[in-house]
Amino acid sequence: MLALRNCWYVIAWDYEVPANGLLARTVLNEPIVVFRTAQGRFAALEDRCCHRAAPLSKGRNEGDGLRCGYHGLKFDAAGRCVDAPGLERIPEAAKVRAYPLALKRKWLFVWMGDPAQADERLLPDNFSNDDPAWRNRPGYLHYDTPYLLICDNLLDFSHLSYVHEKTLGGSTAIAQARPEIETLERGVRVSRRVPDVPPPPYYGRIRRFAGNVDRWFVYDFLFPGTLLMSSGGKPAGQKEPDPANSVLLHSCQTLTPETDDTTHYFFQQSHRADAGDASVTEGIYQSLITAFNEDRDMITAQHESLRRSPGAPMLPLGIDSALVRYRRLLEDAVARERAG
Amino acid sequence: MLALRNCWYVIAWDYEVPANGLLARTVLNEPIVVFRTAQGRFAALEDRCCHRAAPLSKGRNEGDGLRCGYHGLKFDAAGRCVDAPGLERIPEAAKVRAYPLALKRKWLFVWMGDPAQADERLLPDNFSNDDPAWRNRPGYLHYDTPYLLICDNLLDFSHLSYVHEKTLGGSTAIAQARPEIETLERGVRVSRRVPDVPPPPYYGRIRRFAGNVDRWFVYDFLFPGTLLMSSGGKPAGQKEPDPANSVLLHSCQTLTPETDDTTHYFFQQSHRADAGDASVTEGIYQSLITAFNEDRDMITAQHESLRRSPGAPMLPLGIDSALVRYRRLLEDAVARERAG
Amino acid sequence: MLALRNCWYVIAWDYEVPANGLLARTVLNEPIVVFRTAQGRFAALEDRCCHRAAPLSKGRNEGDGLRCGYHGLKFDAAGRCVDAPGLERIPEAAKVRAYPLALKRKWLFVWMGDPAQADERLLPDNFSNDDPAWRNRPGYLHYDTPYLLICDNLLDFSHLSYVHEKTLGGSTAIAQARPEIETLERGVRVSRRVPDVPPPPYYGRIRRFAGNVDRWFVYDFLFPGTLLMSSGGKPAGQKEPDPANSVLLHSCQTLTPETDDTTHYFFQQSHRADAGDASVTEGIYQSLITAFNEDRDMITAQHESLRRSPGAPMLPLGIDSALVRYRRLLEDAVARERAG
Repeated sequence: MLALRNCWYVIAWDYEVPANGLLARTVLNEPIVVFRTAQGRFAALEDRCCHRAAPLSKGRNEGDGLRCGYHGLKFDAAGRCVDAPGLERIPEAAKVRAYPLALKRKWLFVWMGDPAQADERLLPDNFSNDDPAWRNRPGYLHYDTPYLLICDNLLDFSHLSYVHEKTLGGSTAIAQARPEIETLERGVRVSRRVPDVPPPPYYGRIRRFAGNVDRWFVYDFLFPGTLLMSSGGKPAGQKEPDPANSVLLHSCQTLTPETDDTTHYFFQQSHRADAGDASVTEGIYQSLITAFNEDRDMITAQHESLRRSPGAPMLPLGIDSALVRYRRLLEDAVARERAG
Repeated sequence: MLALRNCWYVIAWDYEVPANGLLARTVLNEPIVVFRTAQGRFAALEDRCCHRAAPLSKGRNEGDGLRCGYHGLKFDAAGRCVDAPGLERIPEAAKVRAYPLALKRKWLFVWMGDPAQADERLLPDNFSNDDPAWRNRPGYLHYDTPYLLICDNLLDFSHLSYVHEKTLGGSTAIAQARPEIETLERGVRVSRRVPDVPPPPYYGRIRRFAGNVDRWFVYDFLFPGTLLMSSGGKPAGQKEPDPANSVLLHSCQTLTPETDDTTHYFFQQSHRADAGDASVTEGIYQSLITAFNEDRDMITAQHESLRRSPGAPMLPLGIDSALVRYRRLLEDAVARERAG
Repeated sequence: MLALRNCWYVIAWDYEVPANGLLARTVLNEPIVVFRTAQGRFAALEDRCCHRAAPLSKGRNEGDGLRCGYHGLKFDAAGRCVDAPGLERIPEAAKVRAYPLALKRKWLFVWMGDPAQADERLLPDNFSNDDPAWRNRPGYLHYDTPYLLICDNLLDFSHLSYVHEKTLGGSTAIAQARPEIETLERGVRVSRRVPDVPPPPYYGRIRRFAGNVDRWFVYDFLFPGTLLMSSGGKPAGQKEPDPANSVLLHSCQTLTPETDDTTHYFFQQSHRADAGDASVTEGIYQSLITAFNEDRDMITAQHESLRRSPGAPMLPLGIDSALVRYRRLLEDAVARERAG
């Protein structure tokens, strides 16, 4: 799999880990169990007992550690075995891997590479996940496709005109528009402006426009597969967006490879807190789920098609420039990492 | 897979392709999309967009071509890309494979080999599919087995006595009878006559006989796996079948490999138009479906058995002569084709 | 698969084979059909017709043999073809493998190796399956895991404290106790005594104790994976178990590999006939099923974990001594058998 190891990957929304429980989730083919200590701190361990390989997530959270549900070995938040029923001495080797874990604005991140290099400055600026100026309902979808196909999708919004014709799109002008693409240190910035088009169907959840709108989508797409986007629409021809008559959105989305062929997708799209009540929040969420299921149907069909004819060529077109550039950046970064 | 490429394969009953829609079906491991133009002509394209491999069948029929539902490329009936949103020039290479397609008496055939060799004179004489003198209800079944196992089944009717004991069979005399087998240019002709046996259970749908009947099954079995059969029963000892007191049937059945291990099965069994109303047509169809499910259960179990012990020997018996001869003909034809 | 061939394997409880019917079951990857002749004798044949590989279990029991449901070949209890419709002579080679079969106290055993070596003295002493002094309800579970993982489970009862905390266990003292292990000719004997513990939850089905109990588990675990166990509990400190105030149980359990990765599990746990009526028998059965599903959940999760990281090490601990010793005995026996 083409994926960085020395990188933060979102493993869960914070609310997915129950206070006294645990959450099992696989990242980069590695089964991981996340739990919360009695002190409220999160920890992430290899979800595989060192004794007989039973998943620790089949055991229980005892507040100061996890106890395996098969033969009762107990591990603390650092992965050390601290109790082994029936043994007089606990062997040194009795331990499981602990993963560096960071919580930032409701996203729980694990670091999959060398723990010594885990650097919280690399966490993305996912501010709208948890900012009083913004409101959203968080979402999660599971994909039975490799994460890179979903990266491709998020890097070319021309698909909004076709996959999302009746939801997020609404106009073929989105596909006709040519985006600007800038290279960043760990990804690309894509800016697509679409003037004077009908408001897309889902805008009806938020605001009624008398005529056409000018739309914009400006986003950073960063390693390992994180989209941070400002987007919106204002009355066509108006110079600047005005919160009183425009739609202003911020979205955080991120892809975490579960296995070579499956992916976790965490996302939210926020509206301004002063631009609508809970019913608007819910309406945006419902539109998003509908649209993201449209993506998933298409990408799943594409993946199936690729699996049936592995190695068959794809024809590069001008509209692929963002995804081609991102793929090269990622390939280079992975190559550098593997070279040491 | 042992299968001819330069051959017509039935991909669908004509009624399966909706007027403004499309139909996705795989033949010889190749995904194909069939659609109807606004002029009512059928076309068959590779079901894989040349751009990013999305299935075109997830897009839409625009009357003069198919538009991909992912990024909006449009292809005409010849497979040429005629629209590419966001591009100033459409590259020469933007095209998908188009398959020669023929419609004959409600069966839609695709030619899987060299288009230059597609010869409509090779289409089978499937007249009873669509002839005012005959009536039928068309059928389709999907098999999770290789098509050759179903060819074997259709080439040895001794199985009627056992698999179809309570439906099409009704007597062990069918298995005891020795068929005549002739070699044809592209298959074999099998004639099995079974005198003086009780009428099979399903004859009750069509006609009541006072006593025993003489039955006959005369069929051509032709590449790639098409059965064209006259069969019936007359009062035992009567010289010739008389429509007034006999059962006279004509059947067209054909097998199309979907993948190495799965098969499409298209079939109908017709009665004479003057020998019964719609309830007779329906009764024959219901008997056929029941019996063909009996076959499918047995062949699926046989396939599972073969998969569990690949390479284990099968003991050739005298009753296998038709299927052995057909298999050799096919092997020779495939070898000639591959040799060029 | 690490498994003996020259060994009796339980293929079924006798009641699973209907009087006029048959039972299909796979042992060591070999499909077998068991049936009862009109004389009431059991027979076991290869479940694969020698002609076209159809499973004989899709045919019928004719009292003196099985008839294949595809083309009607009939085989007697020794596997010889005795009828072949449509053939004048039955070829010598028309036969299927017959397996030596033994019935002992409701368990039907097949011998998977050289028939000349099938020795009924090797059948286990599964007396409580069918003894007027004992009562039980027989059970069966199917596992999607290799049989050796279940052997491991049965060879280390420390898991009772964790997997079965609320059913068969009830105290961490079981895991703390150190068992005695003796090597037998074809397996090991494990004796675990656990003094002065609360009665386990399921004892409530059988008897109420005023205070703590002394528990014991004494069992032979024999090739290929058969557990024969006396267990029970008496008032803590009392010298000997007294049927009037103690729980006395006998259990017969056995594992039969179906395929490399799946297993048949036959079991019963008996109480003394004078220690309770049918409701006690049923109560013990229900407790057992609940507990054995707990095992199956854990072992299935363990198997999945092992499949995800094949070759990853397991850390041997002192509590594994019985299973390590049994595994070595089995490896040696299989090596001797394979060496001839």
